[in-house]
Amino acid sequence: MKNLNIGLIGYGLMGKAHSNAFTKVNYFFDLEYKPVLKTVCGRDEARVKAFAENWGYESYETDWRKVVERDDIDAIDIAAPNNMHKEIAIAAAKAGKMVLCEKPLAMNVAASREMADAVAAAGVPSLVWYNYRFVPAVTMAKNLIDEGRLGQIFHYRGNFLQDWTISEDLPQGGEALWRLDIESAGSGVTGDLLAHCIDTAMWLNGPIESVTAMTETFIKERVHQSTGKKQKVSIDDASAFLARFANGSLAIFEATRYARGHKALKTFEINGRDASIAWDLHDLHRLSYFDNGDDSALKGWRSIHVTDNSGDHPYMDKWWIPGTSIGYEHTFVHCIMEFLKSLEDGAPAFAPNFEDAVKTDAVCEAVLQSAKDKTWKTIDYKGA
Amino acid sequence: MKNLNIGLIGYGLMGKAHSNAFTKVNYFFDLEYKPVLKTVCGRDEARVKAFAENWGYESYETDWRKVVERDDIDAIDIAAPNNMHKEIAIAAAKAGKMVLCEKPLAMNVAASREMADAVAAAGVPSLVWYNYRFVPAVTMAKNLIDEGRLGQIFHYRGNFLQDWTISEDLPQGGEALWRLDIESAGSGVTGDLLAHCIDTAMWLNGPIESVTAMTETFIKERVHQSTGKKQKVSIDDASAFLARFANGSLAIFEATRYARGHKALKTFEINGRDASIAWDLHDLHRLSYFDNGDDSALKGWRSIHVTDNSGDHPYMDKWWIPGTSIGYEHTFVHCIMEFLKSLEDGAPAFAPNFEDAVKTDAVCEAVLQSAKDKTWKTIDYKGA
Amino acid sequence: MKNLNIGLIGYGLMGKAHSNAFTKVNYFFDLEYKPVLKTVCGRDEARVKAFAENWGYESYETDWRKVVERDDIDAIDIAAPNNMHKEIAIAAAKAGKMVLCEKPLAMNVAASREMADAVAAAGVPSLVWYNYRFVPAVTMAKNLIDEGRLGQIFHYRGNFLQDWTISEDLPQGGEALWRLDIESAGSGVTGDLLAHCIDTAMWLNGPIESVTAMTETFIKERVHQSTGKKQKVSIDDASAFLARFANGSLAIFEATRYARGHKALKTFEINGRDASIAWDLHDLHRLSYFDNGDDSALKGWRSIHVTDNSGDHPYMDKWWIPGTSIGYEHTFVHCIMEFLKSLEDGAPAFAPNFEDAVKTDAVCEAVLQSAKDKTWKTIDYKGA
Amino acid sequence: MKNLNIGLIGYGLMGKAHSNAFTKVNYFFDLEYKPVLKTVCGRDEARVKAFAENWGYESYETDWRKVVERDDIDAIDIAAPNNMHKEIAIAAAKAGKMVLCEKPLAMNVAASREMADAVAAAGVPSLVWYNYRFVPAVTMAKNLIDEGRLGQIFHYRGNFLQDWTISEDLPQGGEALWRLDIESAGSGVTGDLLAHCIDTAMWLNGPIESVTAMTETFIKERVHQSTGKKQKVSIDDASAFLARFANGSLAIFEATRYARGHKALKTFEINGRDASIAWDLHDLHRLSYFDNGDDSALKGWRSIHVTDNSGDHPYMDKWWIPGTSIGYEHTFVHCIMEFLKSLEDGAPAFAPNFEDAVKTDAVCEAVLQSAKDKTWKTIDYKGA
Repeated sequence: MKNLNIGLIGYGLMGKAHSNAFTKVNYFFDLEYKPVLKTVCGRDEARVKAFAENWGYESYETDWRKVVERDDIDAIDIAAPNNMHKEIAIAAAKAGKMVLCEKPLAMNVAASREMADAVAAAGVPSLVWYNYRFVPAVTMAKNLIDEGRLGQIFHYRGNFLQDWTISEDLPQGGEALWRLDIESAGSGVTGDLLAHCIDTAMWLNGPIESVTAMTETFIKERVHQSTGKKQKVSIDDASAFLARFANGSLAIFEATRYARGHKALKTFEINGRDASIAWDLHDLHRLSYFDNGDDSALKGWRSIHVTDNSGDHPYMDKWWIPGTSIGYEHTFVHCIMEFLKSLEDGAPAFAPNFEDAVKTDAVCEAVLQSAKDKTWKTIDYKGA
Repeated sequence: MKNLNIGLIGYGLMGKAHSNAFTKVNYFFDLEYKPVLKTVCGRDEARVKAFAENWGYESYETDWRKVVERDDIDAIDIAAPNNMHKEIAIAAAKAGKMVLCEKPLAMNVAASREMADAVAAAGVPSLVWYNYRFVPAVTMAKNLIDEGRLGQIFHYRGNFLQDWTISEDLPQGGEALWRLDIESAGSGVTGDLLAHCIDTAMWLNGPIESVTAMTETFIKERVHQSTGKKQKVSIDDASAFLARFANGSLAIFEATRYARGHKALKTFEINGRDASIAWDLHDLHRLSYFDNGDDSALKGWRSIHVTDNSGDHPYMDKWWIPGTSIGYEHTFVHCIMEFLKSLEDGAPAFAPNFEDAVKTDAVCEAVLQSAKDKTWKTIDYKGA
Repeated sequence: MKNLNIGLIGYGLMGKAHSNAFTKVNYFFDLEYKPVLKTVCGRDEARVKAFAENWGYESYETDWRKVVERDDIDAIDIAAPNNMHKEIAIAAAKAGKMVLCEKPLAMNVAASREMADAVAAAGVPSLVWYNYRFVPAVTMAKNLIDEGRLGQIFHYRGNFLQDWTISEDLPQGGEALWRLDIESAGSGVTGDLLAHCIDTAMWLNGPIESVTAMTETFIKERVHQSTGKKQKVSIDDASAFLARFANGSLAIFEATRYARGHKALKTFEINGRDASIAWDLHDLHRLSYFDNGDDSALKGWRSIHVTDNSGDHPYMDKWWIPGTSIGYEHTFVHCIMEFLKSLEDGAPAFAPNFEDAVKTDAVCEAVLQSAKDKTWKTIDYKGA
Repeated sequence: MKNLNIGLIGYGLMGKAHSNAFTKVNYFFDLEYKPVLKTVCGRDEARVKAFAENWGYESYETDWRKVVERDDIDAIDIAAPNNMHKEIAIAAAKAGKMVLCEKPLAMNVAASREMADAVAAAGVPSLVWYNYRFVPAVTMAKNLIDEGRLGQIFHYRGNFLQDWTISEDLPQGGEALWRLDIESAGSGVTGDLLAHCIDTAMWLNGPIESVTAMTETFIKERVHQSTGKKQKVSIDDASAFLARFANGSLAIFEATRYARGHKALKTFEINGRDASIAWDLHDLHRLSYFDNGDDSALKGWRSIHVTDNSGDHPYMDKWWIPGTSIGYEHTFVHCIMEFLKSLEDGAPAFAPNFEDAVKTDAVCEAVLQSAKDKTWKTIDYKGA
């Protein structure tokens, strides 16, 4: 077993999710590499120390540059706010570290392009935590498409619906709510939620060619945690767009934090000539599947409980028994597992990596630009 | 087109459902016979007159004996309380009329036996309104079983759950609430609800051999509408039983009017070696189907929307377009349609007829007896 | 009871649905007016005669002008292909008849404007069969919104998904498939399906202000039934648009006949500050409702079975018993019932009437135009 | 932090589930005690060694007696087949160890009585892994009942449906299939599945007073792995019973491994005067709730996504974010967490402990006996 020494930057929700995956992956998967929790870095010493103790990190740091400089670190894992991704990632790549990074990759395409170039120049592996690819039902959807079971694709729909920012009393900024602050987040739901939908969509259905979008900020002012004063809200509370894929299919996408009743309803549905599939995060262990080849009287949407341990259902042979589900945290376990496997001799490169994430950022940027211009945008992947 | 002159006894809910079916069946189905609304009979003259005018009955009567004696009546349709079924049916048969009767057929097996003997002796066709056989999804379930798609049957489950009698303030007896009065109804949910479940079950899965049951009356006293006084409630509010079918399968059945949240949740589920099916009345246009022959990774319960007009889905080619559902009232239309069709030359006899209903009554009686005795009962169909 | 003599033009699916409603409405609703099936008109004499006999029309015609001219006709009901609506409706209005018309009202806004002006000039009542307003669950949604239960609206989503034209072998044109022929239909799914979504949406959520759209024709050529030759398909197979409502809410709409697995999945979902609602036609008897005022731990989407006969659930007190559903055909019964009621002294005018339908056509036209131009369109209701 | 040194006996599915819980519990919950993986014991040295290495046990043993004798072990965790529970548990208690044991506690009530007496005599804490109590939605159901929200209970239904033993080719006995061998398992689905249903039911709804049951063995002979020969199958493949609770409610229970289409469908539904609740393991993160206090028109079953981190939803504040689910393994984490918490000064004793499990075994034994006798059985908890 080879150690992979991890330096984690950030100890928020994602820091916790990644740490859990690092500690757990080797219990369930047979791998050459094993993550070692070497150090975690955060600005608040008391909190980062507590985090390190809780998760068993061997040390902690309060300056990310020190982590990058340490010789005993193999991989830098960036779970800090979006506006810090670029500087850390490029420094890490230059220091010859593997770079793992939360999504969206950067504040804009130009930045994400630089980051992808940096890891390419350094020749280091990269990972972007688009964790939903690694839900067993989603991976199975990918397999069904690759097997050709859907035939020609006509329609794609992807939503990510939440309702946690409806109250006007919610402030923006600060450690907990940096996602509402344009300076830290770069955008609102477009980067936070649609980026996930776009990554899933392009993985499943190929490149998006063009988009037309609209965005809205429903609550115009919120108290900023850094100033204590009401300030303009500049992020998008909601974002929706029409799209055409390169394969000729039509798509609609929507993300919002104002869909009362939905907590984290990431969804997709794909309609093909021969079959359709649908999935959502609220019941992530189920895949809906309609097969037009079924006997005529007996056609219907199947609700597949993706929990068999026979080898048919991706990843599930490593977990428990049929009918018993895994959850959100396991998507991170599968993600790091695939990354570790990609480090083994001759294994194919990991995806989604920085180069993949640049493409997703390109679509996000076109969406935001289209919403401003009120025109269709063709995605420029070469520039991306 | 041949007229079939109807004399309806009773103008309550079932009188309305039957009248609607009589007026409607020939618009949608191509038949030799056409019901003619000749007369309707009820004790309250003002009300029966209003009913006759509303539905276009040519006349009305207040004494059912007159209806039976009228020469211009071909078929007597009994939609009166259970305690009147026997006398009317036997008189009608003796008068050479076809006899249609609401379920349960009678107050006890002995009575239902007499009634079946009477129609047999008279050589007249009979019908018992076990209307749920004629839900398209239920008919399709029957077809799937007959085709052998389920293989050996292991389990049957049938429920009928309601919640409309939970209030202690509800009285018993009278025109609206005779179902709560043992004198008019003969039993509670056993005859009212379980009878439906048993009819469906034996149609789909063959004869029930033995049962053990329990019943309960949760509210012990209710005001009786005829006396205005609190009187003992003697009907069963809830009734459940274990059963073994002749084909070796095990079953559980339950009916109640105390299942808060369920209005008319009649259900069944059948588990076979090769496939399973499930259905419920709240979404009567759907059949759930699990096929063990599906590709291993893709097995799942299908929700079949039984609304295709291609001929695949029973009865639905006569109605509207795929995706648009029919409802409760259509079960009565299909029932009378099949009866009318059975009157055409060479057509097979109609089921469920009186002989079928005697068997259902035999199971109901065994259930009620078992609940008293606390022992298993073997059903005696010969005596039945 | 006053007779309302009907002259029906067209004997296809809608002719059947309307006839059923005319024959049935007075059995269930207490009204001053009663439709009388005076005559039905169609071009194929044998077929129109058979239709008349089946439904009990007193006569039949093969030239619609004769129907319009007949003195014994009070109301003309237009269930002919879209390209015939305008001429018939204007002639009927000029002849002083009430005019009932299938949707979409016309081939374009200019035509629908003329039609609305004609009924206004003649002072005759009008009706457009946007039947889905009259699904009890949809009517209840309207009531909830009018009571203010949803609060400020943030999002509206409306789909109408079908899958019946995916086969390349399906021809276009002719009596059965005129909906695929641009000459008869005017447009594809925009007029056939989106028009329904838009009517429902504007009824529930107020006027749509602006849209940006895309359309697609997946199968470019189909045999035309009139020529027997392959011809270009000019209708839209799929149509989707983003919209902004006057109340500030954002919307996405989509209709297609290429969504494998969906037969007639008309849906809507509305997210408000205080509550959300959702509905679909495949389970038309259910309304999904999320109330943010529920106890914190117990918030969840409620599935309301809209079948109570207590008076709480619109229209349902006239039908059967709780838990037993009605279906598609009843939407037409309720529609004509409300129209008949509007004819009673002092009753409010009926909606949706021609003036309402012009607005819907205005949105449809903007959608089609936007899809061509690839620009946002502001709806001009004054011109409409 | 105080160490709690664990000696695990058994390295099968449950050994894996417990080990995962031991390693994980302190990452997510703030506790005084921390399990230390001291040793694991199994008969096959190669396999137990591999298990120890994988999970980080400090040592391994092949004779459970050695584990019991070791001074450095605080708690013995029994995850061996049922026929070994009694001897190990009593020896462990006598050695002064805490005893954790998989369910069912023993092969019969007499044995489980002895085990409970042994831990009582030794004064050591005990735990039985009825893990489903610790599903957040199930714990919340318990809270709702304790708050009195359901009012008087009328009905309880509990199922556990599987389909994994339908093939005749499946052998019995051996390490993987000891559950099919009467010698190792004691019973079939009664002890394996119904025991879970009964534990949940009595926790939620109080003691069961009387039962009448039926069992069946559908496949009469299977190859035994120890002999390689076809031998009689003596376990129950299916088991169903009617029951009456002390609180006056009626119940039906059923478990089977022949319900095609269901993998691990553990369910319960409880109908009370004021509210009803329902849950199933296939969607373990949802609780269905019907509140009769809701506004009349808006009553409906709520589907509560039990994933809020606000403190409202049991345990969920320690995990992730609203809308993101946890799974099967977390039930074991919560179970051991509550046990560890119970060891803290002044904390209430842990349940379910051995004494609770004896009661469940008493019901199971009555069920099996009733199925043989075909009579009702009153449960003797004093003897139990």
